[in-house]
Amino acid sequence: MTWTLIAPIAALVAVIFSIYLYFYVNSKSSGTPKMIEISEAIKEGARAFLKREYIALTVFVAIMALILTITLGIFMNTGVEIGPSYIFGSICSAIAGFLGMEVAIRANVKTANAAQEGLNKAFPIAFRGGAVMGLSVVGLALLGISVVYFFTGRPELVLGFSFGASAMALFAKAGGGIYTKTADVGADLVGKVEMGIPEDDPRNPAVIADNVGDNVGDVAGMGADLFDSYVASIVAVMILGEGLRQVAPLDNPYVNLPLIFAGLGIIASIIGIVTVRVGKKGNPGKALNWGTYFTCAILISLTFLVTVYLEFPLEIWGALTVGLIAGIIIGVTTDYFTSIDRMPAKKTAEASQTGAAINIISGFSYGLISMFPPLLGIGIASATAFFICEIGIGAGFGVYGVGMSAVGMLSIVGMIVAGDAYGPIVDNSKGIAEQAGLEEEVIDIADRLDAAGNTAKAITKGFAIGAAGLTVIALLAAYQEIVQREAGRIIFDLMNPFVLAGALIGIAMPAVFSAMVMLGVGRNAFLMIKEVRRQFKEIPGLKDGKEGAKPDYAKCVDIATKGALKELLPPSLISIGVTLSVGFVGEFAASLLGPTYQFGGIQALGGYLGGSIFSGLIFALLMSNSGGLWDNAKKYIEAGKLGGKGSDAHKAAVIGDTVGDPFKDTAGPSLNTMITVMSLVASVFAPLIVAFALIL
Amino acid sequence: MTWTLIAPIAALVAVIFSIYLYFYVNSKSSGTPKMIEISEAIKEGARAFLKREYIALTVFVAIMALILTITLGIFMNTGVEIGPSYIFGSICSAIAGFLGMEVAIRANVKTANAAQEGLNKAFPIAFRGGAVMGLSVVGLALLGISVVYFFTGRPELVLGFSFGASAMALFAKAGGGIYTKTADVGADLVGKVEMGIPEDDPRNPAVIADNVGDNVGDVAGMGADLFDSYVASIVAVMILGEGLRQVAPLDNPYVNLPLIFAGLGIIASIIGIVTVRVGKKGNPGKALNWGTYFTCAILISLTFLVTVYLEFPLEIWGALTVGLIAGIIIGVTTDYFTSIDRMPAKKTAEASQTGAAINIISGFSYGLISMFPPLLGIGIASATAFFICEIGIGAGFGVYGVGMSAVGMLSIVGMIVAGDAYGPIVDNSKGIAEQAGLEEEVIDIADRLDAAGNTAKAITKGFAIGAAGLTVIALLAAYQEIVQREAGRIIFDLMNPFVLAGALIGIAMPAVFSAMVMLGVGRNAFLMIKEVRRQFKEIPGLKDGKEGAKPDYAKCVDIATKGALKELLPPSLISIGVTLSVGFVGEFAASLLGPTYQFGGIQALGGYLGGSIFSGLIFALLMSNSGGLWDNAKKYIEAGKLGGKGSDAHKAAVIGDTVGDPFKDTAGPSLNTMITVMSLVASVFAPLIVAFALIL
Repeated sequence: MTWTLIAPIAALVAVIFSIYLYFYVNSKSSGTPKMIEISEAIKEGARAFLKREYIALTVFVAIMALILTITLGIFMNTGVEIGPSYIFGSICSAIAGFLGMEVAIRANVKTANAAQEGLNKAFPIAFRGGAVMGLSVVGLALLGISVVYFFTGRPELVLGFSFGASAMALFAKAGGGIYTKTADVGADLVGKVEMGIPEDDPRNPAVIADNVGDNVGDVAGMGADLFDSYVASIVAVMILGEGLRQVAPLDNPYVNLPLIFAGLGIIASIIGIVTVRVGKKGNPGKALNWGTYFTCAILISLTFLVTVYLEFPLEIWGALTVGLIAGIIIGVTTDYFTSIDRMPAKKTAEASQTGAAINIISGFSYGLISMFPPLLGIGIASATAFFICEIGIGAGFGVYGVGMSAVGMLSIVGMIVAGDAYGPIVDNSKGIAEQAGLEEEVIDIADRLDAAGNTAKAITKGFAIGAAGLTVIALLAAYQEIVQREAGRIIFDLMNPFVLAGALIGIAMPAVFSAMVMLGVGRNAFLMIKEVRRQFKEIPGLKDGKEGAKPDYAKCVDIATKGALKELLPPSLISIGVTLSVGFVGEFAASLLGPTYQFGGIQALGGYLGGSIFSGLIFALLMSNSGGLWDNAKKYIEAGKLGGKGSDAHKAAVIGDTVGDPFKDTAGPSLNTMITVMSLVASVFAPLIVAFALIL
Repeated sequence: MTWTLIAPIAALVAVIFSIYLYFYVNSKSSGTPKMIEISEAIKEGARAFLKREYIALTVFVAIMALILTITLGIFMNTGVEIGPSYIFGSICSAIAGFLGMEVAIRANVKTANAAQEGLNKAFPIAFRGGAVMGLSVVGLALLGISVVYFFTGRPELVLGFSFGASAMALFAKAGGGIYTKTADVGADLVGKVEMGIPEDDPRNPAVIADNVGDNVGDVAGMGADLFDSYVASIVAVMILGEGLRQVAPLDNPYVNLPLIFAGLGIIASIIGIVTVRVGKKGNPGKALNWGTYFTCAILISLTFLVTVYLEFPLEIWGALTVGLIAGIIIGVTTDYFTSIDRMPAKKTAEASQTGAAINIISGFSYGLISMFPPLLGIGIASATAFFICEIGIGAGFGVYGVGMSAVGMLSIVGMIVAGDAYGPIVDNSKGIAEQAGLEEEVIDIADRLDAAGNTAKAITKGFAIGAAGLTVIALLAAYQEIVQREAGRIIFDLMNPFVLAGALIGIAMPAVFSAMVMLGVGRNAFLMIKEVRRQFKEIPGLKDGKEGAKPDYAKCVDIATKGALKELLPPSLISIGVTLSVGFVGEFAASLLGPTYQFGGIQALGGYLGGSIFSGLIFALLMSNSGGLWDNAKKYIEAGKLGGKGSDAHKAAVIGDTVGDPFKDTAGPSLNTMITVMSLVASVFAPLIVAFALIL
């Protein structure tokens, strides 16, 4: 048990270190009064949104906690702590999102200011700002898991914590995603396309809303997303570990091992974060990637030593390593399909010469192809991890190995999030530099920092999707494990009509979810566009930038906020509701068919989760990658190729990029979270469905 | 056995009746010399393409037949007839496509000419033209199956016939789809968008290629597609029937029953076709739908009587009826999502007011949502059919029932194809009426005929996808059945790492296939656009329609032909190649892991097929429906709403429609065929993979 303490200790260290980094960032200057003014406007908008979002969600969290406590806590033997665990998970996730955002909205203006003194002064502020997010995510997550587990000793209750974190993440992703794209699409379509003014121009009434969106969507939402995968992968392995025989020298070794590895992952991430730095003429993109690889290397070494020392089978370490390597390979191939200097982006840019339609078809097609390498990677990684452990250790260890490969990928999340959160910080800092009218040279440095963010983002995004894929596979195994305790071994045979029908419904869910959030963006963007057009029309001299002609930023912020809050609940609730319906209605239908088909609902739910995993991965990869590709095809043209800015090809590419915006920033990244939530709902409520089947 | 003769007899009647209808259509006048000239140009282009396509495919067919004969015929005990069966299937499919196209290219000009005498004179020509296609598809298909089966007595050899038909269909769909959209996109983007001249204007150099495309893509391709599902569903049920115990009064009753039902389906279709007519002021859309419903009613009655008379369990009839009803429900919901006067199309049209990007996001989102009802429908239908037969008759009959529900849907394919082929005929007749400068009134009638075609198309398209879904599920069961004979019962358990890895690769395949054909369209359209632009630039007076300024139609036809031939092979070969690789490489990998994992490749292939079914259905529904929706959103605006033709909203909607073109006419409809081919490859080669596993 002693070694397991590495988890809360490392988690505490991460939290403390992130507080230190927060003060480091905060100690830097925010620059001119103009910059401070812009920064304050962003801060105000972002805080207002998060506050309203969290208040709105309090009701949901309270109701869900009550349901969990009554159904699972009182009627079943899960324990009444399930409700509080759920609330605790929600709160930890919300705090991590809030902290990350708080530092991001400070780091961006400070980065912009420091860019005046050179790249090597600006980079650490942006990166350490991201690191605050990264470390608070892993710190709070692992601390939360440790607290629930050490107090209750039951992984099932950690599942409640995980469900709380995931449900919160789903709302944060959907809400933040809708917010950011409402603002972005509105700002771009009227400002850039209709009025012909540059991006991030202070004349654009939606520009502040756009900046706010980057923070609430990309930073807070993304933090919550990886928080959720991270927790889910650990809890899935804990539950799978419960089912294994005990062969190693600890109390309950296979339940504790993911905690130990996660603790080591935090240590590796901290070392990685500390060593990332860039010279005056250095390449920030390389520095970020190097940090990721270095962290992986440290993690592989640390886990090897600990595995040997604690006399765990080395095969488990092998599974973890497989996960890490697969993560990197998936990231690198993702990079190929979205990178500005690769064939797909270039071909898509060329296609823009024949108009927007061909640009869109091209980007969409490469997005479709891009899913092949990661899906193959996840397939091979999961099979390899399975066989290493199943053959090397013994029957039953295979799925544990699959779960461990997910933990392997996710244990360096501290570093991944640091690099990922760096992206929106430098994106915003560039925006602020432009709005504040800083010198060309400074904007150029901001631009280089931003470009590095995009490269890092592609790799970490691939990593995140790969990790989510392995995590939900592990969660499906965890669901099977939980069901097995009450109902015996249940197989999810594809030719079983329950499994098949469940799978057919399951594959539709990610599609419906994506559509609902994108239609939400469409509806809100419509209002935003109308408002921006109105302001340009009614405020005299706004377009020409006359002295005193000030746009009404607050109105646009308000439209984005209200719209996001209205649209975030329905798709999230449907995901949870349909999941429960498949289980309960399926079980009811099965009971009508006679005792032979008992647990048909359990099987249907297994098929449903399988289907949703397949479809969720497909759409997450398609949307993220084609969205990134359209973006870079546009940037390729903006760099002066094929006629450059203002050409017909550029206009076509802008349309493609606008289509890609809700793909890559709203729907795509929410899907990981959505399938995780659905898997957790199934696992949490599995005992209840089994009980329902038994009394029917 | 006597009753089984109903199959070849009904098939012969269908062929003879289609020849009669062919002469009926051919006896009508083709109108003015100008119309005949246009018609001849289309005929020439279409024949040239088919000829070159078939010649190119001869090599492939010969090689594949050789492989089949050597591997399965000589080394395995499938019988050397497998090669000839395969060739026979290819030829039957090609002939059906060719015949349908031959009559279509005649019917279109004759319909245009008859439209001068009124709607009720024009409608029968178009519809009976379609009926030639419908009846020759079912006639040749069922005749072919009967010949192979009666001569050899072995469903496994019918599988070879089916594989031949499907492989040919895949080439025809991919090639025709690429051809038609290359021409369409090229004609639209330069003619309509850049030059501002109307659709089907004779000044447009790509207009003849566009007309040819409608025939080779929509008519010949679609006929081949349904030919393939039709044959596949029947053979799947025959194979499942082989595995059942014999309880009814025939020789091998459950193998023969699908043939009997298919024969009855042809009779029902012929009765339905004969009764479809429309008055002078009648509504052709209603007439077409009424014909479909009437055919269903006749089929349900006939099959009921025969089932009772032959003392088959009534549950099988129940499964067939479930399939039919599900088909209609899926068709009606599809209609809702694509119809011009429903909310999704209207909302998408409204979204066009804020630009092309929002139009595309909106149409794509409704396309995503639209997959929910059909997937739910297929899920419920398959489960219902399964349980009716499994519980009502006995263990093992469940999957047979699922197959029979697919046969139920597909047995009215004669009627479905008649209505479906009607679409491109009237579309072309409208084009010819415009190119030949017929009166406004005549064009109006042609327009009404065309609109009816679109409504009918939506319903039959939903039908086709639903039927394909059930067919591939039945094929997966057939694959399991074939494997079982040599290797014992093999379960496709989702948590088995082979199945899971196979499924992850399988879900990527339809995406990769779609991308390849769409990129093919993009590449060819690029060349076409350049050529059309060149002609408008270099031929003096072409745009203004000066006397003597004639575009070079042949050059555009040539570009479309060459491009389609170049692009159709790679995606089709990859579908076949990867399927075989998963089986053989999987089995090889399994052998390395030890004897416990024997048949891992068989399991991987099962998961692969399952994954490809899920993903294939998703993308087929998404692409068909969002494509149809964008088309109708554009038509809604063209009908004078939201600013009408030429408005900014219209321009945006045209971009959406152009994106939708390869979605709905190239990639989407090929996917049914692609997943059928992959399933057939697996079933045909299953004995070989099992043998490979046993010798390893």
